[in-house]
Amino acid sequence: MPLSGVEVAKHDNKDSCWVIVHGKAYDVTEFLPEHPGGQKIILKYAGKDATEEFDPIHPPDTLDKYLDQSKHLGAVDMSTVAAVEKVEDPEEEERQQRIKDKPLLEQCYNLLDFEAVAKKTMKKGAWGYYSSAADDEVTLRENHEAFHRIWFRPKILVDVKNVDFSTTMLGAKVDIPFYVTATALGKLGNPEGEVLLTKAAKKHNVVQMIPTLASCSFDEIVDAAEGDQVQWLQLYVNSDRKITQRIIEHAEKRGCKALFITVDAPQLGRREKDMRSKFEDQGTNVQSGQTTDNSQGAARAISSFIDPSLSWKDIPWFQSVTKMPIILKGVQRAEDVLKAIEVGVQGVVLSNHGGRQLDFARSGVEVLAETMSVLRELGLENKIEIFIDGGIRRATDIIKALCLGAKGVGIGRPFLYAMSAYGLEGVDRAMSLLKDEMEMNMRLIGCTSVDQLNPSLIDTRNLGSHVTPVPRDSLGHTVYDPLVPPSFKPPKSKL
Amino acid sequence: MPLSGVEVAKHDNKDSCWVIVHGKAYDVTEFLPEHPGGQKIILKYAGKDATEEFDPIHPPDTLDKYLDQSKHLGAVDMSTVAAVEKVEDPEEEERQQRIKDKPLLEQCYNLLDFEAVAKKTMKKGAWGYYSSAADDEVTLRENHEAFHRIWFRPKILVDVKNVDFSTTMLGAKVDIPFYVTATALGKLGNPEGEVLLTKAAKKHNVVQMIPTLASCSFDEIVDAAEGDQVQWLQLYVNSDRKITQRIIEHAEKRGCKALFITVDAPQLGRREKDMRSKFEDQGTNVQSGQTTDNSQGAARAISSFIDPSLSWKDIPWFQSVTKMPIILKGVQRAEDVLKAIEVGVQGVVLSNHGGRQLDFARSGVEVLAETMSVLRELGLENKIEIFIDGGIRRATDIIKALCLGAKGVGIGRPFLYAMSAYGLEGVDRAMSLLKDEMEMNMRLIGCTSVDQLNPSLIDTRNLGSHVTPVPRDSLGHTVYDPLVPPSFKPPKSKL
Amino acid sequence: MPLSGVEVAKHDNKDSCWVIVHGKAYDVTEFLPEHPGGQKIILKYAGKDATEEFDPIHPPDTLDKYLDQSKHLGAVDMSTVAAVEKVEDPEEEERQQRIKDKPLLEQCYNLLDFEAVAKKTMKKGAWGYYSSAADDEVTLRENHEAFHRIWFRPKILVDVKNVDFSTTMLGAKVDIPFYVTATALGKLGNPEGEVLLTKAAKKHNVVQMIPTLASCSFDEIVDAAEGDQVQWLQLYVNSDRKITQRIIEHAEKRGCKALFITVDAPQLGRREKDMRSKFEDQGTNVQSGQTTDNSQGAARAISSFIDPSLSWKDIPWFQSVTKMPIILKGVQRAEDVLKAIEVGVQGVVLSNHGGRQLDFARSGVEVLAETMSVLRELGLENKIEIFIDGGIRRATDIIKALCLGAKGVGIGRPFLYAMSAYGLEGVDRAMSLLKDEMEMNMRLIGCTSVDQLNPSLIDTRNLGSHVTPVPRDSLGHTVYDPLVPPSFKPPKSKL
Amino acid sequence: MPLSGVEVAKHDNKDSCWVIVHGKAYDVTEFLPEHPGGQKIILKYAGKDATEEFDPIHPPDTLDKYLDQSKHLGAVDMSTVAAVEKVEDPEEEERQQRIKDKPLLEQCYNLLDFEAVAKKTMKKGAWGYYSSAADDEVTLRENHEAFHRIWFRPKILVDVKNVDFSTTMLGAKVDIPFYVTATALGKLGNPEGEVLLTKAAKKHNVVQMIPTLASCSFDEIVDAAEGDQVQWLQLYVNSDRKITQRIIEHAEKRGCKALFITVDAPQLGRREKDMRSKFEDQGTNVQSGQTTDNSQGAARAISSFIDPSLSWKDIPWFQSVTKMPIILKGVQRAEDVLKAIEVGVQGVVLSNHGGRQLDFARSGVEVLAETMSVLRELGLENKIEIFIDGGIRRATDIIKALCLGAKGVGIGRPFLYAMSAYGLEGVDRAMSLLKDEMEMNMRLIGCTSVDQLNPSLIDTRNLGSHVTPVPRDSLGHTVYDPLVPPSFKPPKSKL
Repeated sequence: MPLSGVEVAKHDNKDSCWVIVHGKAYDVTEFLPEHPGGQKIILKYAGKDATEEFDPIHPPDTLDKYLDQSKHLGAVDMSTVAAVEKVEDPEEEERQQRIKDKPLLEQCYNLLDFEAVAKKTMKKGAWGYYSSAADDEVTLRENHEAFHRIWFRPKILVDVKNVDFSTTMLGAKVDIPFYVTATALGKLGNPEGEVLLTKAAKKHNVVQMIPTLASCSFDEIVDAAEGDQVQWLQLYVNSDRKITQRIIEHAEKRGCKALFITVDAPQLGRREKDMRSKFEDQGTNVQSGQTTDNSQGAARAISSFIDPSLSWKDIPWFQSVTKMPIILKGVQRAEDVLKAIEVGVQGVVLSNHGGRQLDFARSGVEVLAETMSVLRELGLENKIEIFIDGGIRRATDIIKALCLGAKGVGIGRPFLYAMSAYGLEGVDRAMSLLKDEMEMNMRLIGCTSVDQLNPSLIDTRNLGSHVTPVPRDSLGHTVYDPLVPPSFKPPKSKL
Repeated sequence: MPLSGVEVAKHDNKDSCWVIVHGKAYDVTEFLPEHPGGQKIILKYAGKDATEEFDPIHPPDTLDKYLDQSKHLGAVDMSTVAAVEKVEDPEEEERQQRIKDKPLLEQCYNLLDFEAVAKKTMKKGAWGYYSSAADDEVTLRENHEAFHRIWFRPKILVDVKNVDFSTTMLGAKVDIPFYVTATALGKLGNPEGEVLLTKAAKKHNVVQMIPTLASCSFDEIVDAAEGDQVQWLQLYVNSDRKITQRIIEHAEKRGCKALFITVDAPQLGRREKDMRSKFEDQGTNVQSGQTTDNSQGAARAISSFIDPSLSWKDIPWFQSVTKMPIILKGVQRAEDVLKAIEVGVQGVVLSNHGGRQLDFARSGVEVLAETMSVLRELGLENKIEIFIDGGIRRATDIIKALCLGAKGVGIGRPFLYAMSAYGLEGVDRAMSLLKDEMEMNMRLIGCTSVDQLNPSLIDTRNLGSHVTPVPRDSLGHTVYDPLVPPSFKPPKSKL
Repeated sequence: MPLSGVEVAKHDNKDSCWVIVHGKAYDVTEFLPEHPGGQKIILKYAGKDATEEFDPIHPPDTLDKYLDQSKHLGAVDMSTVAAVEKVEDPEEEERQQRIKDKPLLEQCYNLLDFEAVAKKTMKKGAWGYYSSAADDEVTLRENHEAFHRIWFRPKILVDVKNVDFSTTMLGAKVDIPFYVTATALGKLGNPEGEVLLTKAAKKHNVVQMIPTLASCSFDEIVDAAEGDQVQWLQLYVNSDRKITQRIIEHAEKRGCKALFITVDAPQLGRREKDMRSKFEDQGTNVQSGQTTDNSQGAARAISSFIDPSLSWKDIPWFQSVTKMPIILKGVQRAEDVLKAIEVGVQGVVLSNHGGRQLDFARSGVEVLAETMSVLRELGLENKIEIFIDGGIRRATDIIKALCLGAKGVGIGRPFLYAMSAYGLEGVDRAMSLLKDEMEMNMRLIGCTSVDQLNPSLIDTRNLGSHVTPVPRDSLGHTVYDPLVPPSFKPPKSKL
Repeated sequence: MPLSGVEVAKHDNKDSCWVIVHGKAYDVTEFLPEHPGGQKIILKYAGKDATEEFDPIHPPDTLDKYLDQSKHLGAVDMSTVAAVEKVEDPEEEERQQRIKDKPLLEQCYNLLDFEAVAKKTMKKGAWGYYSSAADDEVTLRENHEAFHRIWFRPKILVDVKNVDFSTTMLGAKVDIPFYVTATALGKLGNPEGEVLLTKAAKKHNVVQMIPTLASCSFDEIVDAAEGDQVQWLQLYVNSDRKITQRIIEHAEKRGCKALFITVDAPQLGRREKDMRSKFEDQGTNVQSGQTTDNSQGAARAISSFIDPSLSWKDIPWFQSVTKMPIILKGVQRAEDVLKAIEVGVQGVVLSNHGGRQLDFARSGVEVLAETMSVLRELGLENKIEIFIDGGIRRATDIIKALCLGAKGVGIGRPFLYAMSAYGLEGVDRAMSLLKDEMEMNMRLIGCTSVDQLNPSLIDTRNLGSHVTPVPRDSLGHTVYDPLVPPSFKPPKSKL
């Protein structure tokens, strides 16, 4: 017989804490202190239905995996559960109105347009988690702006009637040289989560990298793939290597074609925008003066298992447990690419984790230029596949990376934004736009295939320039009286 | 007997589509799928008078050329045609008011002033077409800003009483070293179209380059020339070379003095501002949620015939069909200038198509500096005439280009803006202002003729600097409390 | 018997045009076409009292010098002259209110503060004339900003108890290494005009350079000097060399100690801000559509006599007519400083005329760095006295110039602004503030006299950097969601 | 018998001026002309209770030290003293409201957040004193922004499970490589003053440098230290060396571990923001037109005793009177570091006094890069301990400085702001946040102890770049029509 809501509701405190998820009750009293996201957020739902809060953050198999079966209390008669009274929230009402009024999908002409729509239609906390980055978010922005310091030297009078920008990455044939890189918590943007990205990747024949911190379970994402669709696995290494081994072996068995080990995140970043949005969310009912839990944002909540002791010494072990090619994701200096070649991995992603880890880390594309110059000098440029991610928004960005020597680029946030704003059609259109831009710009640079892209087609002299203008003298700029265009006659007064 | 409006009005759909243009009816049913601008826009006028929409986009001979005579249905009794009911459009009313209130022509002191007036007085779609450029419009703006990285090293105590800035371009004597470069769809700005520019060019003795995509017919533009006025032909090469040959031979017969082959546009650019303005124009009646045609803006509509396979191999053929000097328009790297010399053409225009094609293409003036340095090293600087266009707004810009080694510069948009805002007098004044500035600045730099202009008069060390400042830390700049000038006493309260 | 106002008022047109100045009538009918400022402005006062308009633009001896005695009609009975009816001008009323509310003089702590007050309290036309510069006013601003690319390398632990920043310029002992440079039309800012500056210069023991285009007569300015106060003469060379010779000889006789020949102004600049302010002033009553005179601003009006043929060949003549040291004002490249040494003049002012002539001329301080490096290489650094002007606003600017090798610097506009805002006390305080800053900063850089200032005390590596940041991608910067500081609680609603 | 308020109140003028401080009366008539802060401010309180104004500016032993005992008039019966009638001050009321509404301490996530809160909650004059800097405050801002020109080259796959960022400075073991540097007038921010910082330093095991110009007395600050807590002494050298000697000997006796001699302040800076805030404070009752005392801000008021003749020759004397290690604070060029080594001091602080002295002095971190490169070339890098201060706001800033070669960094204003906004808990949290950031970023750069930090981990190529962008052409930027994201439907009108 199912439990009644009234019964569950009694266990609404620290000493006895039950919660309902998807119609079943769980006793999490003992689990409280271990919850990576802190006790506070669970206690908020003690005795109540936590499904809506639970879903975007946790894959569906979480409770089976991490909560002992003895704590699974069984089905609840949901008709007896008091509906959580929704507080009227004028902000949420305005958001709902904005969702109704949002631009037609056809009005989005580039990847940034999706971001603009997502910013206004996503929940604040979800936007905070996706968009935030480390410290002052300087690297976040530098990632894209670095591309603006690379200029083209296009060739003319090349027959560009037929342009082919397909390529091969780690053995996989793809239609265009980008892959969907791993990003956490897809359900924050869309209830379907990462599976939606699987479908879009299939449609456009590009690779999807499956994140360790997905909101869908790994198997759901793999099951969503069709035919010979290629997927890669992104791995946060667990302090408990047995868990890690199980994950790798399972992924290989399910057909994953490559293993991307994240090496730039021994600890997940402090992201103040995310922290602030979480605080403000949870802090609204807090009485003035009372201290609240020092919320650390979603990033900390989900990452406590990551092993900060992971080092070069561990690489042979990975090579021993899998036949998948191994790629180090998050390399940030040429010296470490040389080491990667030495230890025999198949690839590196020059990346700073989308600016979410170390602020003032250099952009992937700048590290790429440094790296290729070293590799070419040593004759090693073909010993390893090099990818970059971070800041790619235009096909010109992709072309610049390939001219420098990258095999392909990873794109993350833009697809999350497209998905959050318009679902699968949004991602579909985002990828189509990139293909449109790609065809156009390959023609305009005078190349008909990606193997023709080479350093002579770009001017990178300024790529390493990180200048901050001298602070302006406020007085001087305040008193300067700028030139203005000629005036139109002022409107007549209405008398 | 003329057709009646009622009869025409019956053919208002896909299956039978007639339109009226300049008092004559045409059956375009079969032509619908071939229309470069898409079916949608024609169907909007099915059974109706389309003249107003037709005119700025199509030269008058278009229907004769492209629609079989059997589809020409003859005259319509226009008195029987129901007038298109004009929807009251508050935006258009405001624009009409702005036109009434616009500044006097005499208040325009430089080319940018015309642009400011045009921006407020042109139709949104026309402004969108003229002002838009590729992707993020970075190259569009860089074209002008590159000149701001060139500084003068003027000579003093030179007798500059008599200053002569006339010169010769491709054999033509001109009063000032600029020419009116080819720009499409002149009638969007003024009903007289390109012919108006012909008259202004005559008055100021400068060359006009006739665009392939003019709204006036080629012959109208040539007919408008007077005396020994020099005109050049700008050519988009058609996939059907016979058409191209006919155009070239006709131009030569009509007296054109040079052939400028556009080489930077195998496909016309994606211009998002243009796309957005078209979408908003056509999309206003679309019901929420309904999908609309993916409008691509005017650029795509008019350019489907351009041959993307055009290559260096085609140059000898051009040389075989004409005696006009051949100039490649849109060269973007020194290597291709060397090739141009090798294949024996007479000139190149270092240009990125006004920023409308490949974003992050470098400015013409930067490519000029690169090119001249290579040519001088090889002793080839006199083997070819080099022009630039893009971003020229001041006589100082012209002087900088000539100091570097250009024979002359092309100016496009500024004259379109002057024409759109003030008609022929506008263009006349724009050219006069340039001459005023030219005289002044030749004196101030200490030169009395253009052949005295040379690289020692400028400082170009920073021309190749493409820097983006490090992203600002928002927090730091938000909390800084800037110095302010001393306060005036606050106004007394009115009590 | 004096003329009556009624009589004069009859001559109110082109065919017979009389005007009253300082109580006397003049027949200017024949002079109309020769008036450097155009006919229009005279005709506005035809038959009326023009004194108020006449005074700031013309030295008192103008009519005696330039209008034949036969046209001097004699005294007018001013009681019979109809008062010019003042149109109520809300802008002027607001300005008068601002003058009443202006900050106390003691609230001005630096030279820019005076400019801020002047901007709000001066008449629009006067502000336009003083503050305007050539074309886009880029050089105007660069003049000051160039100093911001020079940084200090101060010495510590130097005994700086006694700091002496007096120096010698062209033989004159001065208290601080700046001089009041020549600026035109002082009465636009204050009815006393240049004589006010003479008094301030005396008080602070600095040199005043007397402008050719002063509103006071030359003799008035010399008469205002006291004791052994040193004055120099700034000279625009007249096409009629006899006039020039007369001016020079008179100046020498009256005790001027040096002759500064302006060499950067063969034609006075187009200053659009000035032109626009003049147009708007005169254009207000013009009916829509009617064309008005193309006003060129005050600069053109007063400068038509300047000889654009002046050249190096003329220098020996100047040397033959005067024993005063000769200084070329407006040199802009090292090569011309070498020439100046060669022809044997005593000094140069590296100057671009306050940014009023050629836009994109480099700053004086940048040309100084270039020049001194050349001179030192050739061992010529002591052969000539080198001054700069343009953009000096702080004692640190003066110190930077002296570290580079200048003997002194000229300051112009700041004193005009101080004078316009606060009269003599304003200029007095401005000079005092500079002395305060000078004492402080000499100590802080670790020098006790100006001869200790040397290049090792500054870092000029970036002085030649003229960068324009890559144009921003508007979309990217629009969608970025910047970090903000924590929020204060919102104010309670007033219910 | 105590004095009565009525009696004291009689002495309210220049000729007989008594003031009450902490319940005692003092006759300061003869002291008036000697008061470093000017007579004016004392006369404002003549005959009244001046305690509130006196306290933040003067250590409690001031009157004992500087006013002869004969002028100490003894206790006052405070019940008879007329309360100073507080003028209602709407600004102060608004500030009090802001203090009530200020963010919770937990909402501050970084050092800049405290500054944002302090700016809105501090008294205007106190904010002015703390936040102001020299001239245009360019160096103030450059201090922080210089760090933005240093980028990281992090190492990956380093075992960073255990991170230890403790270090040793001048023999003292500290938990994190920063110290609380000396800043004046702590009681302006919090009534407890510097003693509060002593407590925070103890809690986090960092060194506090005791300022000469503290509001607490030296002994109060030393008394507040606990256990083996390390304190250093910052010294302004008095013209009277006997006083200086007394201070040094006393400090050594009380256990201070190092002597930091300030060498960048022979005269305290002009800080216009401070001057302006003081003026406005005192000037409010001044009638229009009447001149007021030329207030110089707090800095001048408290510093008149500093000896501007201090020089290298004095160093041996300091070495003779103390055994404490001597550190020169305010060195600004590599040459002077070499001299410091030569004269045998133990350390230098590369500092520009927080931008408060010489504007356009370079940042400490830039001088550090210059210095270390010279020292390493000469093999002297271990001969002296090098510190920097100025602009440190993030742990990444600290890490950058240590990578370059600093032993530690001084932090001043941020702790003042934290203290002003939130008292001791504020400073505690500020230090905790720095430790959080430090741990995170040590891991992310791939180092487990501070001795692993080295120059190869950073990219400093742009550190010396001081660029000012070319002034923008206002017209061009005004007329440019930027791209915008797609529009949301406009809100329905409310009809």
